[in-house]
Amino acid sequence: MTATTARERMLLAKSAARTIGLLSDHAKRDALRSIADAIEAATPEIVAANIDDLDRGRAGGLSTGLLDRLRLDAPRVAALAAAVRDIAELPDPVGRVLDERTLPNGVELTKISVPFGVVGSIYEARPNVTVDIAALALRSGNAAVLRGGSAAEQTNAALVAAMRGALAAEGIDPEAIQTVDEFGRDGARELMQARGVVDVLVPRGSAQLIETVVTESSVPVIETGAGVVHIVLDESAPLEWAREIVVNAKVQRPSVCNAVETVLVHRDAAARLLPDVIGDLQAHGVTVHGDDVVAGLVNGIVPAVEEDWATEHMSLDITVGVVADLDEALAHIRRYSTQHTESIITQDSANAERFLAEVDSAVVMVNTSTRFTDGGEFGFGAEVGISTQKLHARGPMGLNELTSTKWLARGSGQVRA
Amino acid sequence: MTATTARERMLLAKSAARTIGLLSDHAKRDALRSIADAIEAATPEIVAANIDDLDRGRAGGLSTGLLDRLRLDAPRVAALAAAVRDIAELPDPVGRVLDERTLPNGVELTKISVPFGVVGSIYEARPNVTVDIAALALRSGNAAVLRGGSAAEQTNAALVAAMRGALAAEGIDPEAIQTVDEFGRDGARELMQARGVVDVLVPRGSAQLIETVVTESSVPVIETGAGVVHIVLDESAPLEWAREIVVNAKVQRPSVCNAVETVLVHRDAAARLLPDVIGDLQAHGVTVHGDDVVAGLVNGIVPAVEEDWATEHMSLDITVGVVADLDEALAHIRRYSTQHTESIITQDSANAERFLAEVDSAVVMVNTSTRFTDGGEFGFGAEVGISTQKLHARGPMGLNELTSTKWLARGSGQVRA
Repeated sequence: MTATTARERMLLAKSAARTIGLLSDHAKRDALRSIADAIEAATPEIVAANIDDLDRGRAGGLSTGLLDRLRLDAPRVAALAAAVRDIAELPDPVGRVLDERTLPNGVELTKISVPFGVVGSIYEARPNVTVDIAALALRSGNAAVLRGGSAAEQTNAALVAAMRGALAAEGIDPEAIQTVDEFGRDGARELMQARGVVDVLVPRGSAQLIETVVTESSVPVIETGAGVVHIVLDESAPLEWAREIVVNAKVQRPSVCNAVETVLVHRDAAARLLPDVIGDLQAHGVTVHGDDVVAGLVNGIVPAVEEDWATEHMSLDITVGVVADLDEALAHIRRYSTQHTESIITQDSANAERFLAEVDSAVVMVNTSTRFTDGGEFGFGAEVGISTQKLHARGPMGLNELTSTKWLARGSGQVRA
Repeated sequence: MTATTARERMLLAKSAARTIGLLSDHAKRDALRSIADAIEAATPEIVAANIDDLDRGRAGGLSTGLLDRLRLDAPRVAALAAAVRDIAELPDPVGRVLDERTLPNGVELTKISVPFGVVGSIYEARPNVTVDIAALALRSGNAAVLRGGSAAEQTNAALVAAMRGALAAEGIDPEAIQTVDEFGRDGARELMQARGVVDVLVPRGSAQLIETVVTESSVPVIETGAGVVHIVLDESAPLEWAREIVVNAKVQRPSVCNAVETVLVHRDAAARLLPDVIGDLQAHGVTVHGDDVVAGLVNGIVPAVEEDWATEHMSLDITVGVVADLDEALAHIRRYSTQHTESIITQDSANAERFLAEVDSAVVMVNTSTRFTDGGEFGFGAEVGISTQKLHARGPMGLNELTSTKWLARGSGQVRA
C-alpha cells in the first residue's frame, strides 16, 4: 500500500468503487472464490499474526471473552473462507428492477438497485468482521474501508493482505479493500468524517462504540445492535409455549442481541406460569432478577433494581416482572425497549394483533422465539447486521440493504411543458 | 400550547405519534380535509400574520426574492388548502406488504410499511413548507415538528394554530403538529439533537442550511437538494433535441434544483450544435459562461472561471464547455456534479447505456429534459423533496419515503434449534 494517510486510502477506495460497481455477477463470484482460496492459503501467516495480537492482548490485560473473540486458529480461518464461499453463491443484489413507469409523454423510467460505492465499518477485536464486511461489500459491488481496532491490528492486516492479493490476481483493483487500522484513532475519526467519500458506515460492536459512531459521524450510519428484548406472557399464554420459548430465547445463546432480557407476565397468569418457567430457567443456570410479586411466587429470585429493566445482560441473567394488563406491558416496552425484537405468548388473537400493531420494534412476534431475528433464519443467506434504526433498513439486513437506488430515464427528445 | 420548552414539544409529538400511527386511511383523509377547510377559514388571520412578517422582513432588509417566497396572500392560502386536499386523496403509504416469507418451521413473516413516528423539518422563509410537511407527515401517519425560521414566525404560527384546531375538532391529538419556531436557534439545535425522539429530519432550503443540518444533527437526516445538473451533447446529438432540451432545462424555471447548470459538448459536435443551442439560450436572456473553444465559436460568451463549474446558478446563467470525448465528460461530472440529475443527448446507444451505467446520480437520463426529476412528474402525487443521498431514499421522494418498515412474525410455539 503506497497511500500514506487514511484519507488517501479512502480516496483510493472511492476510485476503485467505480470499477467494482460495474463488475458482472460472474466476476464478483469469481473474485470471492479467489478471496476464499487466498485466505485458506494464507492460514500460516494469519494464525501467526493472530498469535502476536493475542500475546499483546494478554500482556495488555484483555478479558478472556475478548481474547476468545480475537482468536483466529486454523479451523476458524477455514470457517471464514467457507463463509466467503457462501456469500459468493448469493444472488447479485445489484441491478434489480424496483419500479418501472412510463410517463404520459413516453419517457420510460426504471428504478434499479445500485451499489452504495464505499461501505465503511468500525468494529472491535473481531477479525471475522474484517472478512465478513469486505466480502459482503464486494458481493454488492461496493468497496470497503475497515477499521477493526488496535487489538486485532496484525490479524486484520494479514487478512486484508490476503484479500487484496486475491483481487489483484483476478485483475480487479485491490484498492477496493482498505484498512485504516494503522492510523489508530485518527483513522477512525477520519473515517467518520469522510462524508462524500464513504457512502455509509456500519458500526459493529458494543453499545458504546455504536453510540460514539452515531454521535460523531457525518457519514450516514446504519445503527446495528443493542437488544433489550422483551417477551410478554399474556393471561392466556399456554404453559408449554411459555416454558419452551422463554428458555430458548434466553439460554440457547445468551450473548447475542436477539436473546431475551426481560419477561413480563400478566398478573392473572403469574401463579400458573412462573413457577415452571422460572424453574426451567434456573435449571439451566439462569439468574432470575424479579420484582416483589415474582419473589413471592418462586424461590431463589434476586431482587430486580431499576437498572435491570434497561440492561442488555448478554449473560445467563434475566429480569422478570408482573404487569396488570397488556397496556402496562406495552408502556413498559415503550420505556425500556431498544426497539429490536419483542414477542408475546398468547391465545387471544385481539391481544396478538394489538401487540403487532402497537409495538414499535424492528421485529414484533407472536408465539415464537426472539432468537429468530436473524438474517440467516430469515433466509437472507448472510447478515450485515440487525438495524435498530428506522432509516433505510430495519431489522436483519442482507445484501439488498447494502445497495442504494438510481432512476434511469430514457426519452426521445421530451421536454417539460 | 402548554409545553414551555422545545424538548417538551417534541416529547408531546412523540406521544401523539403513537395514536396518529394507528389512524385508519379514512381518518387520515378526513383529518386532512378538515385541515384544508380550517386553513381556508383562517385566511384573514394567516394573511394578517403574514403582513406582519413581511413588514418586519422589509424593515430588516430581506431581499425581494426572499420577500416573495415569504408572501402568503389569499390566493396562495387557497392554493395551500388545495394542495392539502390533493394529499388527502393519495393512497395510504402505511400497511403496504413489502415482503412475505414462511420459514421452514412454519413461522410466518410479513414486512409491512409503518410510519417513522416523528418527522422533523428545518427550512427557511417558506410558509408553504409548514403546511406541506405537516400534511405529508400526517398522511403517512407521522407527527411533525417544524422549525420554519424567524422570518416567517407569525405566519407559521397562524398556520400551525389552524391545523392543530382542525385536528382537535376531529378528535385527533393536536400535539401531532408542533412548531419550535419561538425557541429560535435553540429550538433548531434541540431538534437536531433529538435522537430517540425525532425519527428523521428533512432540511429544505439553501445548500448552506442543508450542510449545517447534515453536519450538526444526530437525528438521521434525509439530505435534499442542491443540483449542479449536467447535460452532455454527444457527438451524435440531434440538433433539434439539443436545442429544445437545453433551453427547456435552463429556461423553463431557472431557480429550481433540476434546472441544468452545465452543458458539456463533444468537440466534434461543437461547431455543429453550439451556435444554435447558445443562440436559443441567448435569445431567452441566458448569460452563457464558456471556455475558450466555446468563445471561439459563438459571440457574447462570458469567460468561464473555475468556480462556474461547481456553481448552482439558480438563475439565467449557464456554463458551457467542450470535452474531447465521453470519458472526459464522465470525469467532469464525477468532479463537479452534486449527484442530482444528469442527461445525455445522443443517438449512440452504446454511449447512452454507458452514461446510464456510469453516472452516479439520483436520476440519469438519455434524450430528455432534466426538469422531469420531480415527484409530481414521476407520478408520486406529492413531493417531500429530492434526495441527493444514497441512504433510505434517492431522487424524488413521495409519501412512501416517509415510512419505515416492521417485520411481523406469527408462530405457534416455534423455538430455534
